[in-house]
Amino acid sequence: MTGIDDLPVREELRGKSPYGAPQLDVPVRLNTNENPYPLPEPLVERIAERVREAARTLNRYPDRDAVELRTRLAAYLTRTGGHEVTRAHVWAANGSNEVIQQLLQTFGGPGRTALGFEPSYSMHALIARGTGTGWISGPRRDDFTLDADAAARAVAEHQPDVVFITTPNNPTGNAVPPEAVVALYDAAQAAKPSMVVVDEAYVEFSHGASLLPLLEGRPHLVVSRTMSKAFGAAGLRLGYLAADPAVVDAVQLVRLPYHLSAVTQATALAALEHTDTLLGYVEQLKAERDRLVTGLRDLGYEVTPSDANFVQFGRFADAQDAWRRILDRGVLVRDNGVPGMLRVTAGTPAENDAFLDAVRALKKEQDA
Amino acid sequence: MTGIDDLPVREELRGKSPYGAPQLDVPVRLNTNENPYPLPEPLVERIAERVREAARTLNRYPDRDAVELRTRLAAYLTRTGGHEVTRAHVWAANGSNEVIQQLLQTFGGPGRTALGFEPSYSMHALIARGTGTGWISGPRRDDFTLDADAAARAVAEHQPDVVFITTPNNPTGNAVPPEAVVALYDAAQAAKPSMVVVDEAYVEFSHGASLLPLLEGRPHLVVSRTMSKAFGAAGLRLGYLAADPAVVDAVQLVRLPYHLSAVTQATALAALEHTDTLLGYVEQLKAERDRLVTGLRDLGYEVTPSDANFVQFGRFADAQDAWRRILDRGVLVRDNGVPGMLRVTAGTPAENDAFLDAVRALKKEQDA
Repeated sequence: MTGIDDLPVREELRGKSPYGAPQLDVPVRLNTNENPYPLPEPLVERIAERVREAARTLNRYPDRDAVELRTRLAAYLTRTGGHEVTRAHVWAANGSNEVIQQLLQTFGGPGRTALGFEPSYSMHALIARGTGTGWISGPRRDDFTLDADAAARAVAEHQPDVVFITTPNNPTGNAVPPEAVVALYDAAQAAKPSMVVVDEAYVEFSHGASLLPLLEGRPHLVVSRTMSKAFGAAGLRLGYLAADPAVVDAVQLVRLPYHLSAVTQATALAALEHTDTLLGYVEQLKAERDRLVTGLRDLGYEVTPSDANFVQFGRFADAQDAWRRILDRGVLVRDNGVPGMLRVTAGTPAENDAFLDAVRALKKEQDA
Repeated sequence: MTGIDDLPVREELRGKSPYGAPQLDVPVRLNTNENPYPLPEPLVERIAERVREAARTLNRYPDRDAVELRTRLAAYLTRTGGHEVTRAHVWAANGSNEVIQQLLQTFGGPGRTALGFEPSYSMHALIARGTGTGWISGPRRDDFTLDADAAARAVAEHQPDVVFITTPNNPTGNAVPPEAVVALYDAAQAAKPSMVVVDEAYVEFSHGASLLPLLEGRPHLVVSRTMSKAFGAAGLRLGYLAADPAVVDAVQLVRLPYHLSAVTQATALAALEHTDTLLGYVEQLKAERDRLVTGLRDLGYEVTPSDANFVQFGRFADAQDAWRRILDRGVLVRDNGVPGMLRVTAGTPAENDAFLDAVRALKKEQDA
């Protein structure tokens, strides 16, 4: 039988495994930062209606430029982000992963480098590899906050072509203050103009505001977003970015033509019509997230402050063993490979209760 | 105002334009090889039903491995392709463009090359550029057929890592005989193992059979397909491939996780349920395609034999001028940049009549 290593795959892919959390059939799945609330039934009906309409012309290619969708996304950002953007500032793709891939194809690629402050969203490094972009791991403090001075020094030293700032950061949960982002942006322009990508996938869950207003006067800044989390639509795969219109023009040089299907556009438009309902769920999840933080702290765990819909907790002498013990109690959390730490997604109140019960029991075992 | 050239884009992107046919509002659009028949209403309803169901769990990530969809695609290929394949042989992505991008990320990329026989589907070269893969233009005869000996010599000379064989070829329409594909596959294994990608986007319209049976015993052969044409679903963006299971494993090293949305999977599954109806439209289009070939020849045009849902015709002293004159009569065809030639998609009988009227009038003008 032929195996991967019998094929002429690229050298750097040999021995690698596909990215992805283990998919296990467990009562309580709190491992992939999904929104636990199914879309409300009126929205489900609206999606069926919009997709039915789109299906009637499915024999034609979709709107290559996704004009209506980008217009609605811009309106959403303007209303909630504290900064006015138009459809010329907005681009959309199949998940923020594809947004990031297009950015790296445009501004990274062979002979260029990207830098992120790790631990952070591991797809940044993986997509860098997939696009032939060199990857540089930038520093974080032991408590997972960003040391703006150390970060700026890393940027000055390595002069990367693309800098990723994930805020709120995944998997740690903490946000980066706007002043630090400004300082890093300036540092990334000192030696040569570099692109700075602020990944705000979880920003709707933050105590603070979006960094969208920083776009003003910063043509090399990009803010990336997703409908997977706050819009409860991980299954839709809709990511987007806001940036100077020139950036939107530039990524169109590498995007696959007609990359965004008519059914994806129709479904996203339906979801945007129900923004207020969905943001109501976000408020519930923020309260639940805060309850997890408090509950974990009360049990004596170390908890990283969270501005996201998940919480990082520890420290464990053996995080993998702790992950397994929690799983044994029917709750799936995530081991992101951060030494001593695990990550739990804020679920429904009942799911969070089940999780807190599991970690309470774990604590007793470990203290015994 | 910031322009693309004010941004630190990759050097090879400077001065480039995004790929895509001009989008013009014209009564008869025969320029992008779309299927002119809208999906039948029962299928539209089935799509709405399946997507409604998928929307109820849209807060969860989609099936990362698209198991049900790949199983159904494998059944379709087995039934129509003359060769048994299972889901382990099949992979799917957002359009055959993404399939090709994943193949080039896996087997091409920086320091590697891909070769195609031009004129052919221009996205092969563009996706090569987008993935940092060097591009080599292989030869075709003046009548656009593939000279198997000259093609094999080009492969032997350049030793590309990936060879593209588009059959039926786009934009010329003609098919490559299986013996030539076998000879090229062997040539591509002589110096080192190279991948051979047979792009069968239009094969359902062919007078001949699919090349799927050639997969037997050829682990470096890939057959790529799409639902855009025969399934009348260009708006869906569903491409797929059949190959040795090791190839399917390998592309998963570069695919973006959860790249295929739940709504895309649901819609494709619905369309596959209506395969027989859709293949009925294909039969109608083949008859119309043959009518276009005969009609154009009767008018004295040079016509490339077509196994696709489009016809290449000429020769024009000035193809761009002819394109404009046909457009002036309300019919949009495609100038693919093949000197002296234009391409027309087989539309509905009424659309094809309008096209034939336009080229009859054009001929009279030019003969006058």
